[in-house]
Amino acid sequence: MSAVVERVQRAIEAGGRLARAPAESRTRALKALATALVDPEVCARVLEANARDLAAASGLATPLVKRLKLDAAKLETMADGARQLASRADPLGDVLARRKLDEGLVLEQIRCPLGVLAVVFESRPDALAQIASLALRSGNAVLLKGGREAAESNHALAEVVRVALERAGLPADAVQLLDDRAEVDALLGLEKGVDLVVARGGKEFVEHVRARSRMPVLAHAEGVCHVFLHRSADPAKAARIVVDSKVTYPAACNAVETLLWEPGAEAALDASVAALRSVGVELRGDAATRARHPEMTAATDADWDCEYGALILSVARVADLDGALAHIARHGSQHTEAIVAEDRAAAERFLAEVDAACVFHDASTRFADGYRFGLGGEVGIGTGKLHARGPVGVDGLLTFRWLLRGSGQVSAEYGPGQKPFLHEDL
Amino acid sequence: MSAVVERVQRAIEAGGRLARAPAESRTRALKALATALVDPEVCARVLEANARDLAAASGLATPLVKRLKLDAAKLETMADGARQLASRADPLGDVLARRKLDEGLVLEQIRCPLGVLAVVFESRPDALAQIASLALRSGNAVLLKGGREAAESNHALAEVVRVALERAGLPADAVQLLDDRAEVDALLGLEKGVDLVVARGGKEFVEHVRARSRMPVLAHAEGVCHVFLHRSADPAKAARIVVDSKVTYPAACNAVETLLWEPGAEAALDASVAALRSVGVELRGDAATRARHPEMTAATDADWDCEYGALILSVARVADLDGALAHIARHGSQHTEAIVAEDRAAAERFLAEVDAACVFHDASTRFADGYRFGLGGEVGIGTGKLHARGPVGVDGLLTFRWLLRGSGQVSAEYGPGQKPFLHEDL
Repeated sequence: MSAVVERVQRAIEAGGRLARAPAESRTRALKALATALVDPEVCARVLEANARDLAAASGLATPLVKRLKLDAAKLETMADGARQLASRADPLGDVLARRKLDEGLVLEQIRCPLGVLAVVFESRPDALAQIASLALRSGNAVLLKGGREAAESNHALAEVVRVALERAGLPADAVQLLDDRAEVDALLGLEKGVDLVVARGGKEFVEHVRARSRMPVLAHAEGVCHVFLHRSADPAKAARIVVDSKVTYPAACNAVETLLWEPGAEAALDASVAALRSVGVELRGDAATRARHPEMTAATDADWDCEYGALILSVARVADLDGALAHIARHGSQHTEAIVAEDRAAAERFLAEVDAACVFHDASTRFADGYRFGLGGEVGIGTGKLHARGPVGVDGLLTFRWLLRGSGQVSAEYGPGQKPFLHEDL
Repeated sequence: MSAVVERVQRAIEAGGRLARAPAESRTRALKALATALVDPEVCARVLEANARDLAAASGLATPLVKRLKLDAAKLETMADGARQLASRADPLGDVLARRKLDEGLVLEQIRCPLGVLAVVFESRPDALAQIASLALRSGNAVLLKGGREAAESNHALAEVVRVALERAGLPADAVQLLDDRAEVDALLGLEKGVDLVVARGGKEFVEHVRARSRMPVLAHAEGVCHVFLHRSADPAKAARIVVDSKVTYPAACNAVETLLWEPGAEAALDASVAALRSVGVELRGDAATRARHPEMTAATDADWDCEYGALILSVARVADLDGALAHIARHGSQHTEAIVAEDRAAAERFLAEVDAACVFHDASTRFADGYRFGLGGEVGIGTGKLHARGPVGVDGLLTFRWLLRGSGQVSAEYGPGQKPFLHEDL
């Protein structure tokens, strides 16, 4: 048996024990994890490991170092995620439907874990605690592989999680760290054993994982998000929302890439442009926008489909709300779309008609996030429509089974001209 | 614009109108469809079209002709499916979660249709009415392509559906029939426009669709289902269940392929073997089974992974319930697994531990079906764990969107050391 097959086998077994344990054990493990993450001794150990990573990372660019660096506030956020999840009702065994098909023939649809997850993520070590917490609450085993530059931090954090599992009487092997890229590639090449592969990171990295994997992948995909300024938009709100959506984390998939405005929204546009410029955002406008703001660079066709991941924003005028809907339908990536409008009816039409995972009114696109949504973190953000959509928390890590309890019934007894089904919801 | 792109475009627009129409319109269309399917004049027209297909099908094998042939009972079953769905609450706009993130910042998770479905199915024309009914209730537009040999029947049935849509004031283009295989191939080659492709038919056909499609496919995949005879099994029940599971429709994916038994279940095994033999089922046993029933053919390793689709059944002895669980984990296709047992504790353990879409106690595997489950039919049966699992009815044709209604909030206001989120479920 290859090393990776043996690891997957251990994960399957540990996952089974984790899922069959009483809900209280999973809650206890989450509480133990939250406590450990703010324990001074544990914190010191994790931060020391992180310091070793930082020391080795002298060649890295500043934003990467910022993502790599752990501190007390980040540990507190991780602990808070684990606490949030500990206080949530355990979902395993939840009955989604119960139906009497006939006397003594009862159907149940019950929630259960997917089984084994594999999560491959880049740089940020805090993702490890977040993902492990979500796996614990959903009863899934998880194989984790973080960025090489965070190796020491990840090992220290994984150890904290494994100790928390053991304190709750659960198998430590429910959370395992994969050693290197070769092991990940071997894993992705397996035909079965992992129920969901989650890829978090840059576009190229996610594409690499998606292309190699023979098992289902949840790709934390491209985000080409828009903010549309309706003619009723409040200029001050517009400027705040557009700036927050662009500059708080330009590399995030929920950052805005294109600002749309309609005639009548000039004051909101002007306020947004001034605010963006004052924080150093490069603006690229279409002809109509440049007629008003001639100092902008001219946008090309490629700009409307581009995820800049940087302090660049394209700006386009649309004819009206319909024009905004059409632009978003054509160029959006079904991630997060926002309207700024005081006109409630216009906002509600936008909320009803935009086909995207997240649709916002008068709020920053950056709220599209599992922690902010109150999901206790996220394993990723899905832009497909199947299974999970938007920030994926516990719910996206669950599936269900149909259980039928009979007393000897056979299908040939039922049907037209024979016994009818009762189909009575219980 | 190519013909197929134009059709998809019409489907997207019709789907939008269908989804935004009041629930009552979709209910009215379903009722109109149910009424039409049992209207003498409509029935006569559909059966005449079916007679033309049958006349052209002189070369087909008997089971195919049986699937192709429509009669009053089949039309009544289709009408009953539409009626079942008309009486179900409309799911669109259902609020799955509502959470106050902060004052004036409220998150909602609401159900919505996937958008446009493409369903490619073989032979059985009654599938058309079933699928169209599910699409209607879920607010999805659907592009349909049935088997060539059922072309006349499919055209007649599609016309009935389209008339029902128009009677309810809904766009007929929400249900469109694709003309030929070339159009299907062109459709599968598109990069977007269809949200879910459903493939129903033989293994090769499903593989063809899966390999060609660039859009997500729900593959009605292989079913290697088992019935396990526990030592507490009632012999008469066992024989009934095993025979029904095998012979009522051997080509169905929910038919049983392997019978497992443990020491102590000899009486149930003997009763099952005798009943199966009396209806002409070929049996292939492992050494332990053949020691008791030497007249059986010897099973080879390949038998344990085979979906026969025919009146053939393999039989294996396992050491005990654990042995049965291990055999199923190794050879099952996570479709439908059943135990026959009077011992409640053994049955509950089986229900809890088998990882499959459907797990049954003392009931035929053939109950794994959307119509029998009370889902108003099915577009297919999924054996994956993501999105839908088991028989896929209305729920599997829905997704959701996250709507956030704010009043100017931005993400930088919140977080450790700043404003906390309320995360209050409403």
